[in-house]
Amino acid sequence: MKLYVSGRTPNPRRVSVFLAEKGLHIERVDLDIMKEEHKDAGFVAMNPWQRVPVLVLDDGTAICESIAICRYVEALHPMPPLFGTTPTSQALIEMWNRRLELNLLAQIAAIFRHSHPAMAHLEVPQVPAWAQANRPKVDESLAILDRELANREFIAGDTYSVADITGLIALDFMKPVKLTIPDGLDHIRRWHETLRARPSGSVW
Amino acid sequence: MKLYVSGRTPNPRRVSVFLAEKGLHIERVDLDIMKEEHKDAGFVAMNPWQRVPVLVLDDGTAICESIAICRYVEALHPMPPLFGTTPTSQALIEMWNRRLELNLLAQIAAIFRHSHPAMAHLEVPQVPAWAQANRPKVDESLAILDRELANREFIAGDTYSVADITGLIALDFMKPVKLTIPDGLDHIRRWHETLRARPSGSVW
Repeated sequence: MKLYVSGRTPNPRRVSVFLAEKGLHIERVDLDIMKEEHKDAGFVAMNPWQRVPVLVLDDGTAICESIAICRYVEALHPMPPLFGTTPTSQALIEMWNRRLELNLLAQIAAIFRHSHPAMAHLEVPQVPAWAQANRPKVDESLAILDRELANREFIAGDTYSVADITGLIALDFMKPVKLTIPDGLDHIRRWHETLRARPSGSVW
Repeated sequence: MKLYVSGRTPNPRRVSVFLAEKGLHIERVDLDIMKEEHKDAGFVAMNPWQRVPVLVLDDGTAICESIAICRYVEALHPMPPLFGTTPTSQALIEMWNRRLELNLLAQIAAIFRHSHPAMAHLEVPQVPAWAQANRPKVDESLAILDRELANREFIAGDTYSVADITGLIALDFMKPVKLTIPDGLDHIRRWHETLRARPSGSVW
């Protein structure tokens, strides 16, 4: 099994943190996106959308999408469970993982991709107005998350889950786009510190 | 159990088609988004992001996000399996569902939300340049999907899955934004016709 990643990018990091929480190691292949190694024919054959991470199994099957890879790892190594263990907890973890991805991480990524000079040759065309439109959406989501976190330690309940991993990656990704958690959102700040303090919290 | 939906909108439809494939019926509450019923305090308490669908369980637990709802239904009613039955098939169905959602449905939705006059008071601000930037991405994804579908009946393999449902919803959502499947993409056209011909294919 080989895991294709690329430097310090957010989606491969979701898998890295997940593996650290499971105490697992998978051999890695590190692509240099700035050198466009993700456009090499061999990689495009594995993922026509030219994105990392990709997990290639020993029989050649390529599993793309960070959450699909995490789910595969969970099926082979169920402990500790990070996707829930009952129909309700599985649904709520899926819900929170998607909320954090679609209502926070995606907006931060949009700001990065559509405003950062380093992305100009990868995101064509950059749409600065789209970066700008996403800024208030980040603040809205942070405010909602802060209220939710007032009553529980982790975002989907009392135990750590894959949704917390997506939250960690999103909050850490605020730094390169120079966003900060607004004053007064103490619950989200506490949550972020809890996630970062875990052994998995500084993994890339 | 009650399912909150809203008229002929794509994400609630994913759940409706999923339920039809399972042969299940859940009582529905139909919100009028044009009348901003999704902003009523009772609904916002269930989903602070103010979106449908939401499945409310008898104990009051609110499950938001169409795929989280589908996964909950699958756990209670495993047959026929629509999320896969082995670690590999589960991962590949998750992968394809995410690709169809993140690389096709999301782009079509962006075009709709950022160019359709009816969305002007719901999507603030509309960013026409963002709608425009998504048009070539739709064509790129359709071309990739067509090549993939040359060798198999359904998108994640030989059996119908939740990923096909997301594909059906995405392809049908092209009509209101006046997009069509480009000439020559016969495999994707055949796939679309297969999905529409099922009893679930015309459900809303």
